[in-house]
Amino acid sequence: MPATPQSQKTIALVVRPNTVGIGEPVGRLLAFLQGAGYRVVLESETAAHLGLPGIEAMSVGGIGAAACAVIVMGGDGTMLGIARQLAPFDVPLIGINQGRLGFMTDIPIERMIPVVGDILGGKARAEKRTLLEGRVMRGGAMIACGLAVNDVVVARGAGAGMIELKVTVDGNFMYNQRSDGLIISTPTGSSAYALSAGGPLLHPSLGGIVLVPIAPHALSNRPIVVPDSSEIVVEIVGGRDTSVNFDMQTFASLAHGDQIVISRSPNQITFLHPEGWSYYDTLREKLHWNEYPSGEGKLR
Amino acid sequence: MPATPQSQKTIALVVRPNTVGIGEPVGRLLAFLQGAGYRVVLESETAAHLGLPGIEAMSVGGIGAAACAVIVMGGDGTMLGIARQLAPFDVPLIGINQGRLGFMTDIPIERMIPVVGDILGGKARAEKRTLLEGRVMRGGAMIACGLAVNDVVVARGAGAGMIELKVTVDGNFMYNQRSDGLIISTPTGSSAYALSAGGPLLHPSLGGIVLVPIAPHALSNRPIVVPDSSEIVVEIVGGRDTSVNFDMQTFASLAHGDQIVISRSPNQITFLHPEGWSYYDTLREKLHWNEYPSGEGKLR
Amino acid sequence: MPATPQSQKTIALVVRPNTVGIGEPVGRLLAFLQGAGYRVVLESETAAHLGLPGIEAMSVGGIGAAACAVIVMGGDGTMLGIARQLAPFDVPLIGINQGRLGFMTDIPIERMIPVVGDILGGKARAEKRTLLEGRVMRGGAMIACGLAVNDVVVARGAGAGMIELKVTVDGNFMYNQRSDGLIISTPTGSSAYALSAGGPLLHPSLGGIVLVPIAPHALSNRPIVVPDSSEIVVEIVGGRDTSVNFDMQTFASLAHGDQIVISRSPNQITFLHPEGWSYYDTLREKLHWNEYPSGEGKLR
Amino acid sequence: MPATPQSQKTIALVVRPNTVGIGEPVGRLLAFLQGAGYRVVLESETAAHLGLPGIEAMSVGGIGAAACAVIVMGGDGTMLGIARQLAPFDVPLIGINQGRLGFMTDIPIERMIPVVGDILGGKARAEKRTLLEGRVMRGGAMIACGLAVNDVVVARGAGAGMIELKVTVDGNFMYNQRSDGLIISTPTGSSAYALSAGGPLLHPSLGGIVLVPIAPHALSNRPIVVPDSSEIVVEIVGGRDTSVNFDMQTFASLAHGDQIVISRSPNQITFLHPEGWSYYDTLREKLHWNEYPSGEGKLR
Repeated sequence: MPATPQSQKTIALVVRPNTVGIGEPVGRLLAFLQGAGYRVVLESETAAHLGLPGIEAMSVGGIGAAACAVIVMGGDGTMLGIARQLAPFDVPLIGINQGRLGFMTDIPIERMIPVVGDILGGKARAEKRTLLEGRVMRGGAMIACGLAVNDVVVARGAGAGMIELKVTVDGNFMYNQRSDGLIISTPTGSSAYALSAGGPLLHPSLGGIVLVPIAPHALSNRPIVVPDSSEIVVEIVGGRDTSVNFDMQTFASLAHGDQIVISRSPNQITFLHPEGWSYYDTLREKLHWNEYPSGEGKLR
Repeated sequence: MPATPQSQKTIALVVRPNTVGIGEPVGRLLAFLQGAGYRVVLESETAAHLGLPGIEAMSVGGIGAAACAVIVMGGDGTMLGIARQLAPFDVPLIGINQGRLGFMTDIPIERMIPVVGDILGGKARAEKRTLLEGRVMRGGAMIACGLAVNDVVVARGAGAGMIELKVTVDGNFMYNQRSDGLIISTPTGSSAYALSAGGPLLHPSLGGIVLVPIAPHALSNRPIVVPDSSEIVVEIVGGRDTSVNFDMQTFASLAHGDQIVISRSPNQITFLHPEGWSYYDTLREKLHWNEYPSGEGKLR
Repeated sequence: MPATPQSQKTIALVVRPNTVGIGEPVGRLLAFLQGAGYRVVLESETAAHLGLPGIEAMSVGGIGAAACAVIVMGGDGTMLGIARQLAPFDVPLIGINQGRLGFMTDIPIERMIPVVGDILGGKARAEKRTLLEGRVMRGGAMIACGLAVNDVVVARGAGAGMIELKVTVDGNFMYNQRSDGLIISTPTGSSAYALSAGGPLLHPSLGGIVLVPIAPHALSNRPIVVPDSSEIVVEIVGGRDTSVNFDMQTFASLAHGDQIVISRSPNQITFLHPEGWSYYDTLREKLHWNEYPSGEGKLR
Repeated sequence: MPATPQSQKTIALVVRPNTVGIGEPVGRLLAFLQGAGYRVVLESETAAHLGLPGIEAMSVGGIGAAACAVIVMGGDGTMLGIARQLAPFDVPLIGINQGRLGFMTDIPIERMIPVVGDILGGKARAEKRTLLEGRVMRGGAMIACGLAVNDVVVARGAGAGMIELKVTVDGNFMYNQRSDGLIISTPTGSSAYALSAGGPLLHPSLGGIVLVPIAPHALSNRPIVVPDSSEIVVEIVGGRDTSVNFDMQTFASLAHGDQIVISRSPNQITFLHPEGWSYYDTLREKLHWNEYPSGEGKLR
């Protein structure tokens, strides 16, 4: 953050809707930020559901242009939504969770005031995250496109049986895969749906994209990690009722011959974590890495 | 087969539709069976697509009542369909594949005449397979039901995100599972969709049913094998656009609170294999158990 | 338990050695049992490490002949060891854990007095568990044998590279498997080492044995469940430094051509659980089935 | 390769020992290379087992200093051994297989003459592969070290039960892991042992290292891919009879407190492939990606 007077610096606030009891901590955070001389604005939808008179509302685009940081109160889902929208603007994001540690919302609400204060004061660890962009092509024309912080998923509909996908990477044919679908995931998404489908974890700073088949027919169709400079083309070759989604935003009704072209977005997201933050600490807590099923407390 | 005169014994023939070049082997098989004194009938749909004058057509129900054996020419899909329909009748099934070994169609077409001759002559290994029956319950009433040779699958629709299922076995709560869905599979189905989703193989004579979650949110939601005397209840607790299918026959539009009640069917299927048939031989061939990825031909 | 006067009934007590603070609860349990009229004996090793004057010590064999129930205080490891030794005697076992639920030691020490009282009074759920027995054969002679409550494991030594095992079931060749080893597990063992190696859970009342390859070279060498009437023969075909163990008791130095012959033991173990005990409750707690990695508390 | 006269260019030849019938193709290759004006030398061990009079023998160090390319005839194991020794010298490697495609020996012996001719003539695709280096530290002193083209493996010995490893990455604590061991693999090694243990495939040009637990006790201890700039420290915390190996070369007898420090080697390997070579073609063939278990030839 450049050394302009703090009175000119704008902080935007995004809050998960319908959160019981959120008024009080929002009020405390607002008071703290204003007391520290920041101009605080509320993202439009947040403004609408919070209904706080006297606090300026601002569109996502306006925030992207004006804010020096965005504070998100909610869970990873709230962060995911706003991060995707703000990706073109390179505004750093700070995530506050409401009681349950998130992969992207790592600051507990009980400790938010000193931690946010430290981060805004420069005691922060900035971390970049890549995004994927995808274009749906039909007969040479783009019929849809999307951005994904987590993943692009091509999958079958309900009761539709297997689909068949032809996968090409940088112009090299990989395989025709029969499965329930294929997840193309960023490192950020590797701890979400891709993990459930059997994919590996990818450290956020790895320059990689992982392809994870969902219930593949061939047992050797294993997850594969490719460099994030790769252009991945997934063509619908067989099956009925196939759809593609970007971070769970669905574009349905794909036809045979449709191609989804996926590559790393030129945009990135920046998270601001507290100093001392470690991705492995989050993983360890979220994945219960120190809890053992057999529970003996000693080696078998 | 009781010792009635062969001239009174009825053999039914089921043939996969739209199979190029099937006319010649069907002709040879018919000639062989009629020459051996059997009355041969064609299942109605087979009769319609083969269009063979002079051979009697018969409904599946008629076959169930009259035939002492049913010969199926096609792949496992063809066998699956007719086996489910014939399950109430306890007529043994003989499977002939057309060039590619099937799990249930184990006799190669090139060798069918001597092998079928041996089997009908009593040199056979009879093998029983269990089926599942499922009832879809809503508000105390049954709104659908079905039989499955392979599996009952409760799954999400396209782009619908996770579903949540409450699973109870013999009245004992197992868990609330968040996933893409749950496969409840017979031993026969364990080498099909359940295997793709990470399930174990079950020997056909095992008295078990396997529950295989599809891309479960909790990494510890592992496949579990329960005795086939179990009554499994799957209740739709969360998620949108959920459906259930029985051997890929879909019943869609499940609502929250709907329950699918699954248990072993009182009916069984009997396959007649050649003497010396072994399930492990089939597995080994189908799963390429003697081919090694690294291909060195020696131990690493 | 037959209706003999309680004063003649013998209860044996087995306690995990080197357990800090165990004296007090042991004392309470002894007082309770003696107060209820039982004759209480201590298994010899337990007697040696507890050093309680006035309480009779008894060998495992003596306990097998005399006791109407054995109470085990410790973890699953303690239970495993005594259960294997008592298997020939059909004495029911009651398991008390010291703070952490076990698969086999399901009674929390805080509630042991009323629960043990209920169980001994007949309010119990008896549950049978199968065991495996294995014989190591070389040149037609048996060179070792063992019993396993959990599993028989054939595995490579440190840094020894892959081994190759020829597996035969009921005389039918299954495959030659190259891997780090093979786990042959009971349902009881399916939640232990076999689970770590990718095997399914098996309900204890399932009549099955699961074969789980450890890091198999062929990706299609998946876990397979066979009926527990099966005789499984594992022959050492390739590799160096191969050993076999029974519940982690190791017999090392296997040579090429050695065969391990494994089948269900004619003996069984009986656990006495409190009424209302459910295997699924234990699984759910041990495997954290209601905790979700992404932690959002709502569906993705 | 710089434009020096071909008569001054040295090509070294490495041949797998004890290969039946290798004399004839070696003779043809020698004749072709000498005819094309190259000076051909044999790696010392190759020279010893081939016993070809009139062809100069040279040590690996000499080859590293003098050769402009090394041709390897054998399998991936042969390539692995020589590549590790030549890593400090940056000499490109060409791999010829003897009938079975290798991941690193991609030229079939039947077509070697024209393909090697094209490659040496400049029609080649050069591909870099990373290596790992590892140091075993005890009490502040290095007691062993090694290089690995495929993987560094820390694992338990035979019948030794679980080991416990403390894993730290770039000074950040990851977890204490209980398992049979941990594989730290390059992209090259990701299709070898790491794949058998459940790891993902990594494209060779990915800047990543994958950590794959072997039969981990905690089901959430999943494979994780970290940037190849990472320094990984594995400390032996628990268990008996632990060893470490580098590409299967074993250093045994690790003690509690020993640390293995692993990072990317400053050296790299260069493979020369024919133009048009694609890693995905090799994967597809090696992993049978176009063969389907159910074999129906149509979608289920």
